[in-house]
Amino acid sequence: MQKYIDKLKSLDHKNMYEGDFFLTWEKTKDELESIWTVADALRDLRERNISTKVFDSGLGISIFRDNSTRTRFSFASACNLLGLAVQDLDEGKSQIAHGETVRETANMVSFMADVIGIRDDMYIGKGNAYMHEVVDSVTQGHKDGVLEQKPTLVNLQCDIDHPTQSMADALHIINEMGGIENLKGKKVAMTWAYSPSYGKPLSVPQGIVGLMTRLGMDVVLAHPEGYEIMPEVEEVAKKNAAESGGSFTRVNSMAEAFKDADIVYPKSWAPFAAMEKRTDLYGNNDFDGIKALEQELLAQNAKHKDWACTEELMKTTKDGKALYMHCLPADITGVSCKEGEVDASVFDRYRDPLYKEASYKPYVIAAMIFLAKFKNPVALLEQLNQDAKARQMK
Amino acid sequence: MQKYIDKLKSLDHKNMYEGDFFLTWEKTKDELESIWTVADALRDLRERNISTKVFDSGLGISIFRDNSTRTRFSFASACNLLGLAVQDLDEGKSQIAHGETVRETANMVSFMADVIGIRDDMYIGKGNAYMHEVVDSVTQGHKDGVLEQKPTLVNLQCDIDHPTQSMADALHIINEMGGIENLKGKKVAMTWAYSPSYGKPLSVPQGIVGLMTRLGMDVVLAHPEGYEIMPEVEEVAKKNAAESGGSFTRVNSMAEAFKDADIVYPKSWAPFAAMEKRTDLYGNNDFDGIKALEQELLAQNAKHKDWACTEELMKTTKDGKALYMHCLPADITGVSCKEGEVDASVFDRYRDPLYKEASYKPYVIAAMIFLAKFKNPVALLEQLNQDAKARQMK
Amino acid sequence: MQKYIDKLKSLDHKNMYEGDFFLTWEKTKDELESIWTVADALRDLRERNISTKVFDSGLGISIFRDNSTRTRFSFASACNLLGLAVQDLDEGKSQIAHGETVRETANMVSFMADVIGIRDDMYIGKGNAYMHEVVDSVTQGHKDGVLEQKPTLVNLQCDIDHPTQSMADALHIINEMGGIENLKGKKVAMTWAYSPSYGKPLSVPQGIVGLMTRLGMDVVLAHPEGYEIMPEVEEVAKKNAAESGGSFTRVNSMAEAFKDADIVYPKSWAPFAAMEKRTDLYGNNDFDGIKALEQELLAQNAKHKDWACTEELMKTTKDGKALYMHCLPADITGVSCKEGEVDASVFDRYRDPLYKEASYKPYVIAAMIFLAKFKNPVALLEQLNQDAKARQMK
Repeated sequence: MQKYIDKLKSLDHKNMYEGDFFLTWEKTKDELESIWTVADALRDLRERNISTKVFDSGLGISIFRDNSTRTRFSFASACNLLGLAVQDLDEGKSQIAHGETVRETANMVSFMADVIGIRDDMYIGKGNAYMHEVVDSVTQGHKDGVLEQKPTLVNLQCDIDHPTQSMADALHIINEMGGIENLKGKKVAMTWAYSPSYGKPLSVPQGIVGLMTRLGMDVVLAHPEGYEIMPEVEEVAKKNAAESGGSFTRVNSMAEAFKDADIVYPKSWAPFAAMEKRTDLYGNNDFDGIKALEQELLAQNAKHKDWACTEELMKTTKDGKALYMHCLPADITGVSCKEGEVDASVFDRYRDPLYKEASYKPYVIAAMIFLAKFKNPVALLEQLNQDAKARQMK
Repeated sequence: MQKYIDKLKSLDHKNMYEGDFFLTWEKTKDELESIWTVADALRDLRERNISTKVFDSGLGISIFRDNSTRTRFSFASACNLLGLAVQDLDEGKSQIAHGETVRETANMVSFMADVIGIRDDMYIGKGNAYMHEVVDSVTQGHKDGVLEQKPTLVNLQCDIDHPTQSMADALHIINEMGGIENLKGKKVAMTWAYSPSYGKPLSVPQGIVGLMTRLGMDVVLAHPEGYEIMPEVEEVAKKNAAESGGSFTRVNSMAEAFKDADIVYPKSWAPFAAMEKRTDLYGNNDFDGIKALEQELLAQNAKHKDWACTEELMKTTKDGKALYMHCLPADITGVSCKEGEVDASVFDRYRDPLYKEASYKPYVIAAMIFLAKFKNPVALLEQLNQDAKARQMK
Repeated sequence: MQKYIDKLKSLDHKNMYEGDFFLTWEKTKDELESIWTVADALRDLRERNISTKVFDSGLGISIFRDNSTRTRFSFASACNLLGLAVQDLDEGKSQIAHGETVRETANMVSFMADVIGIRDDMYIGKGNAYMHEVVDSVTQGHKDGVLEQKPTLVNLQCDIDHPTQSMADALHIINEMGGIENLKGKKVAMTWAYSPSYGKPLSVPQGIVGLMTRLGMDVVLAHPEGYEIMPEVEEVAKKNAAESGGSFTRVNSMAEAFKDADIVYPKSWAPFAAMEKRTDLYGNNDFDGIKALEQELLAQNAKHKDWACTEELMKTTKDGKALYMHCLPADITGVSCKEGEVDASVFDRYRDPLYKEASYKPYVIAAMIFLAKFKNPVALLEQLNQDAKARQMK
């Protein structure tokens, strides 16, 4: 525990207080490290059965505009860990569809909200913008004396980034590699992979290249032609790499990306241009157009069935032992589909690390909340550790 | 804080203990004032980061038979504020549709319930009756030793009244006017306004005229011919006005109502007679009849598009500065609809007070629970204030 | 309280720690008695307003693959009683349908889960198997360091048993009869009864004959020919009866079963063979076949309308005063259906005991959790009793 406290003392996180979490590249490196450090500290406390209930009451509001199991449970777990009750805003059950403005709803649900978690990843140009609208609304509401506290936003996945995923992924890598200082010069392959479904969000690959380039790693983004991610995020990755002493490369070959890689992250996504087109089609309620686009994308995908994480490809990685990563659920060849992103034997061999990877998400979310809601997180961690109140009675 | 405690000491609220909240006009004026006082006290405690968690565990059951965002969140917030977890009875997920009696369900969900909150506002003659059936059932269950405690009912909107709304509205007025003693002689215009939707419940206008007439105010109810509210509630309003030294008038002119008004509350509702007709049609599963009625009502509404809260009308109010109120969401001309209840510029100018108005609802609900579940609310508030346990650690 | 503590001290429950609850007949008699004792103890504490919050935070995960009101609320109540927040895994809202394995989902939702409650009673051969798959998954996840704790499973109804129901029923009988020692030689009639609906699960009759035969009672299972339960469970019942000094008999006459019975439990269920057939039809997506089977079963049911718990039949029971039991909701003749399982006058006379019967379920579930999660339940009950922390402030 002391090492986390000492580490946190050495980092500058004062601007996180009363802030929000939208995109990893809007945070300083110290701020990112503060999150990982607090996440590890909270996990350490819980593993020693020490309560981390820093709220006696209060709400965490969740808004899921897309299906979710693991992120939903991660958010609920994070809130519970800190003492908050989750209240889900189910837009189907509400009057939101009846023309209410975002500003109004955001305030109406926030009178006792300490946190708002939002997933809105379906439409390019919409999700992140919606989150900003929510934050602007509650910030104004707090200034105007309507809200007694400004809830902090946690981006649970938008059209641009999936920061709770990428931050959990990074913490997994840090712990697997024995410390953040060991990441410099490591090669990460973020590559497209074939899936029989279509239209998977871009936020995972974008989040990974946007974050891993901060850590001095050699990040290779690989995909077939036509599967480009958002150009703005590629620019971010380039700039990050230049600053961190790492590199960012884009290739159209999975083999090239896997060659000598320390870490591989093969995963399907939809082309950015197609997602933009879909957003427009939805905007025009052009359902025939959407169907046609779906067929087109599936046909396009089917041309790239050779983009799969096979045993053969894994052998070409560093010592044949690259760390295989995935945000889950993966499309596993012969298990969840006929042909998919990864060979069943590869997936099976990495099951434990994959589950461990996922297990960081609740702690990462809790750390984001912790640093946004408490002015002196160092002192608070010290106090929790010292009080050592049991989470579960003995 | 001391002023709230002193105030509460001066009021007679002893009959509220182990009681329920159905309609404001079933409560004494002391009892209503007790709710406002406790609501202000709870808010004061929370603003000073003092925990108001008076339950260590226990459930608040919610039953929403109509869509809801703000009332759902207000109820969840109130329960959380006091330490209760919310468990929603989603009738779609339950076996209720399978012929189960209200009596049975009410008991089955209440073994650990301290509170039951119900919204059932759709059908005339049904909602309030259903709530009484639930309360009778759990009262009997408690007497028979089936339930260890009798949960208290909070009416979250019925066919007759919307007491958590009107009580929050009244507390807003009290605080805006600088005290309940300043309300005497103030003119309130509760008026119908045009909306392109149809069939909005009567419980808001009924709740407002049923409550504001208790406070010595001059209450004017305005609507086009054919938009009558329940005659029983008009009788209540008349009787209230006679007793409180205020007045209750009904007019068919929005201009007349607005003239020199201190407070205006322009809002659409469906005519009582039409709502009764709709209830019968639903009872007979006459869906063609319902569709025909909808068209009829929309056509009837469309004749009264001039019933709108415009800048011109606002200028005719007291000093041109009446307090504009609404239960939200409002139909705003040019924003949420082409022509609606209120001009966008009027709505915008009053946004802060409108949100503030809404912010009282969680506290009003919590106060209703507090006074029903605790025998000595004065002592309990004193203890909370003295213990000063932090809601959020520092 | 002391009597419960003394009783618990005398029982061997050490193997329950870190265990799960699938079927009553997998538990020793001491273990079953431990559950009833802890359930009574928790109830006694709550009745004296003493907090039983043994968790400061943590989650209870619920997975309902069939509709539920009372079991859903019982599980939520039990979790709340112990300090856990409920997080429901709504498979409709999740990505589970997208080919994810049970193993993965089980781990993904369990990072902070202390309990998992599952209802999966629809398909013969599936529900219990699914629960085992979940438990195996989280046990492995805990061993592999993915989960910090192994959540305990509570079977909230499977295709074989409905242990939270039968255990609550048994506790009701024990308390009605003045102690477990008074059950020896009592006659229990678990009989089929006519219902206009079809396809009710077998888990209640199976649970009852599988449990009551442990207690030295004379258990009679009665049903029309063709309404057999699972043969494996009949074998269990026979073996139990031989060991406990009771008896297990199967008859095809309701009158014979009711004759001199101390307890009667008349309830509709579907024939085992038909349920197996339905499972196959669903497996083949043969919806025409399912419809045909439904009609067949309804026609078959209709031949046995004389299988009803009438006043006449009740008169033939011991002193005409057998204890009438039901898991609720019952199909009441002339109330919830034209012709059903029980006469309205019989049901009405037993309403209080029926509700009391149901009221044990939350405590039985809480006791299952308590004994699985705490190594020294005796000391913990003593501590709760001594600390006497108020559940509701005074």
